Amino acid sequence: MSRENWSRWGEHDEIGALNLVGAEEILAATALVQQGKVASLAQPLSKKTPVPSHRTGLLHFMDRDGGDYAAGARSVHGFQFAEDSVVMPLHLGTHIDGLCHAWSEDQLYNGHASTEITSTHGAKKCGVDKLPPIVTRGVLLDVAKRHGSPLPDGYSIGIEELKETAENAEIRLKSGDAVLIRTGWLENQAGKRRHDINFNEEPGIDVSAALWLANSGAVMVGADNYAIEAMPFPEGTIFPVHQRLIRDHGISLLEGLALQEFAQLGIHEFLFVAAPLPIVGGTGSPITPLALY
Amino acid sequence: MSRENWSRWGEHDEIGALNLVGAEEILAATALVQQGKVASLAQPLSKKTPVPSHRTGLLHFMDRDGGDYAAGARSVHGFQFAEDSVVMPLHLGTHIDGLCHAWSEDQLYNGHASTEITSTHGAKKCGVDKLPPIVTRGVLLDVAKRHGSPLPDGYSIGIEELKETAENAEIRLKSGDAVLIRTGWLENQAGKRRHDINFNEEPGIDVSAALWLANSGAVMVGADNYAIEAMPFPEGTIFPVHQRLIRDHGISLLEGLALQEFAQLGIHEFLFVAAPLPIVGGTGSPITPLALY
Amino acid sequence: MSRENWSRWGEHDEIGALNLVGAEEILAATALVQQGKVASLAQPLSKKTPVPSHRTGLLHFMDRDGGDYAAGARSVHGFQFAEDSVVMPLHLGTHIDGLCHAWSEDQLYNGHASTEITSTHGAKKCGVDKLPPIVTRGVLLDVAKRHGSPLPDGYSIGIEELKETAENAEIRLKSGDAVLIRTGWLENQAGKRRHDINFNEEPGIDVSAALWLANSGAVMVGADNYAIEAMPFPEGTIFPVHQRLIRDHGISLLEGLALQEFAQLGIHEFLFVAAPLPIVGGTGSPITPLALY
Amino acid sequence: MSRENWSRWGEHDEIGALNLVGAEEILAATALVQQGKVASLAQPLSKKTPVPSHRTGLLHFMDRDGGDYAAGARSVHGFQFAEDSVVMPLHLGTHIDGLCHAWSEDQLYNGHASTEITSTHGAKKCGVDKLPPIVTRGVLLDVAKRHGSPLPDGYSIGIEELKETAENAEIRLKSGDAVLIRTGWLENQAGKRRHDINFNEEPGIDVSAALWLANSGAVMVGADNYAIEAMPFPEGTIFPVHQRLIRDHGISLLEGLALQEFAQLGIHEFLFVAAPLPIVGGTGSPITPLALY
Repeated sequence: MSRENWSRWGEHDEIGALNLVGAEEILAATALVQQGKVASLAQPLSKKTPVPSHRTGLLHFMDRDGGDYAAGARSVHGFQFAEDSVVMPLHLGTHIDGLCHAWSEDQLYNGHASTEITSTHGAKKCGVDKLPPIVTRGVLLDVAKRHGSPLPDGYSIGIEELKETAENAEIRLKSGDAVLIRTGWLENQAGKRRHDINFNEEPGIDVSAALWLANSGAVMVGADNYAIEAMPFPEGTIFPVHQRLIRDHGISLLEGLALQEFAQLGIHEFLFVAAPLPIVGGTGSPITPLALY
Repeated sequence: MSRENWSRWGEHDEIGALNLVGAEEILAATALVQQGKVASLAQPLSKKTPVPSHRTGLLHFMDRDGGDYAAGARSVHGFQFAEDSVVMPLHLGTHIDGLCHAWSEDQLYNGHASTEITSTHGAKKCGVDKLPPIVTRGVLLDVAKRHGSPLPDGYSIGIEELKETAENAEIRLKSGDAVLIRTGWLENQAGKRRHDINFNEEPGIDVSAALWLANSGAVMVGADNYAIEAMPFPEGTIFPVHQRLIRDHGISLLEGLALQEFAQLGIHEFLFVAAPLPIVGGTGSPITPLALY
Repeated sequence: MSRENWSRWGEHDEIGALNLVGAEEILAATALVQQGKVASLAQPLSKKTPVPSHRTGLLHFMDRDGGDYAAGARSVHGFQFAEDSVVMPLHLGTHIDGLCHAWSEDQLYNGHASTEITSTHGAKKCGVDKLPPIVTRGVLLDVAKRHGSPLPDGYSIGIEELKETAENAEIRLKSGDAVLIRTGWLENQAGKRRHDINFNEEPGIDVSAALWLANSGAVMVGADNYAIEAMPFPEGTIFPVHQRLIRDHGISLLEGLALQEFAQLGIHEFLFVAAPLPIVGGTGSPITPLALY
Repeated sequence: MSRENWSRWGEHDEIGALNLVGAEEILAATALVQQGKVASLAQPLSKKTPVPSHRTGLLHFMDRDGGDYAAGARSVHGFQFAEDSVVMPLHLGTHIDGLCHAWSEDQLYNGHASTEITSTHGAKKCGVDKLPPIVTRGVLLDVAKRHGSPLPDGYSIGIEELKETAENAEIRLKSGDAVLIRTGWLENQAGKRRHDINFNEEPGIDVSAALWLANSGAVMVGADNYAIEAMPFPEGTIFPVHQRLIRDHGISLLEGLALQEFAQLGIHEFLFVAAPLPIVGGTGSPITPLALY
């Protein structure tokens, strides 16, 4: 029942379900671009970006700036410039989880040993640098719209509700899809101070819904919440959707999507493009996913 | 003669030449996807990524890893995970320069005051967070191929050579194009230790070539080198191409492209997609640009 | 009335009142060591260390650790090691403010221009690297003990109360003294979560008390609170004690002292030793001050 | 023969030889302060501070600065301020090694398991936060002076040479001493660019000299080089002095001392004061050691 996709693409595989995306899927998805428009699905990254308390937020430092020149910095031959640095957790804002992010029993996706992830080298297996760019059909399942408003904290989206949401949008999932789920959670946090945001209860999918997506051919599952799945977790489990999707199915998760504006267009299938930063050994990457329609 | 695009899109504009990309350009570019394939044009990001000495390289830290579990960390209900943080300059590896990155006479592109860029707030004008995703026709001008090998350090590509390179590839530049130039510089650094790389001499374009691109409608100029332009600079100038393209034309630069593998395909036009991280007030962003073909 | 110590030690001076400490003061202070004991007056530095929300807390990252070896890292000739890095604001935990930390009218202590402090170079004047080690008589004014408990938030300690506290302890201030004031604030925060700590109201000294210390010869003023002075500030002022002591008198402040345990000894004069990290251009430094008695 | 001090101060001990410093040692050391003077033995911390290539140097960022005000930042009620942050390895510049820094066979000093050091918690045993302030007699063994110049790279100081150096200075080591060795290495690096410094060959002590110090009662061993011990290491060993002193004897090392100026005074015994930052779980700490004389 578990570890469904282990060995499916060979014992050395580190990209999982993304193996399902080939030229056919890309060409079919490209054909969905009809208006010639692009939507960014990324949150702004700043010190206000919601982040749970065990992670730090973005630190953005100027190495050189306009203030320096105002204070008298000399500009040689008229050249002036500014540059800057950041400190940030890789799971910040809109970000993708690499396949090494979550596991159990000391085995990552495809049976890779978790001891491949160390302080010295980062993740030598299933790092975010191994993920190819994700270019495929994107599908929006707008559960919040179905409810007429953001889902309440803790609301669990089951298989039936997710199926109906897809049917109402006349979407039939197929192999290679990147599925994006709108819960309304992120919109609900607008205006809150970072430390007032509740990261322990959120609307999200349950394991039945997650497995339906996996079995329907999803190669990536995203949502506009903190952790894709409903929280609090069912009794006796911790991040069960992470375990089933990332570890057993080799499906990357895309968290913290900004879907509010795009959802208002009523578009449910589109060319989805998301390109992780190739941080060698990283367990995730901030990302700016795009919907081309 | 200078400040060509100031006020062209209104006094408040902060995106410059990217205003030239509309639905027509996007649809035309999408039609170039014929094989259903994708190439990433990004370098790996690690502590080995070439970076000039005034900037630090990538620092990648594990907040939790597989070693922790090997050392006995308890996993509640079987859940195990890894996560990590980075410290990095925003102009690292393959990255885009925001329009606030370079200027002169205390005025950024479009006349915005450089005093809008401070330690406290970063860039309040022309920050990388203001740039829209770049989705348009990409054009590869493979100057290195023309020479049969990477160009020598310091080699300056002028307008005539760039024009001929385009003609030989049967490319006619048009409004909205993202132009990528291959010099071979990055390939030439392979295997060198970070501190042995010469960032003071590199092949790149000169001002005449840059202005030809701008006047031909380029909305972004990228290259596989450190700074787009030939170094050392002509006597009495410092980063003249940066000044003319970024400040006067409002054209973002895309530096450190990994073009070697893609260039071998011999494809010279394609759907180009590059989505900066929306770092509020940032002067640049690491990025994973894609060629869809 | 203001800028009392400007030019007192020459127009180039960057250390202010610490000029008052000479061999005589050091020898007299050394004579106070009679039991042969040492107390550290520093808080532990961790992600739990109290810090106001506009600053980040300590980030501590392992570059290599025991988990790596547990995960199979090879040890050559039996050698194993661990090392680590931190990200931290310099005004964190128990720390000293350099004389460049606070000012007004674009002039630092001694008339140095505030434009000497830039992103590119840090503080070229009055940086914490300019401060000499502080070795002199330390004096404890235990206002909290006088009240029998930590002072309430917002409590303002005036000149009379501070004088009486000194008199009761039979302490007569003299030139060269490092004065430490116990308000009980830090003890009161014990057990609170970082984000529940109120940094806008605290017990501390008022301007009259501060000036009395300055006029009595204090070369450094420390306290077991966030900002030495009472908060909220008197109407129409912001950090008035910082301005008067740091800028006008050239007196460094030492914030976040851990005084609870030491205060229980009932010792009111001792050899005080505090050595800032010589961070070039820094505006402050975390520090471990010592009382030798 | 090995693990000499394990269990000597109980199975839970985490401070090692520093247990040897008591009131008697402190009082005797205090009596050495006769001129009323203080010397700092710390290098400046900046991006120029020598650091081996596997560590990053100091990154110093301004969060707010004078340039901001020059660029128009508003100052409320006249208050202006600057503050800043750093990113740094803990083994940078003049720094102390905690007893968890080096070990072998998965056991730290006193038999503590190296699995106590993880990414999640840092060092739960023998962290630098466990070290008490070091206040005791300091002894300078000026080997470079004996040679009339800095020792050549790779020069190994043996037991006989160290003994003679002490004898010539009329120093008889005793229990509780902090021993500082001058090799001249740091002085020799002056003016070199960071990446031109050779961290693989340096003058330092050998194991015989190290054990003589340990057996003579040294509680801390410092030097003005990168790693206390001679490099390259004897065939078949890696950091043997680290292993013997830190792990077997529980003696902290103090590296990167700035001794040139102090050595010129010709003072060979003094009150030594060094107070690590109490970074919870840290393996080391930058430090400003003092000689009071």
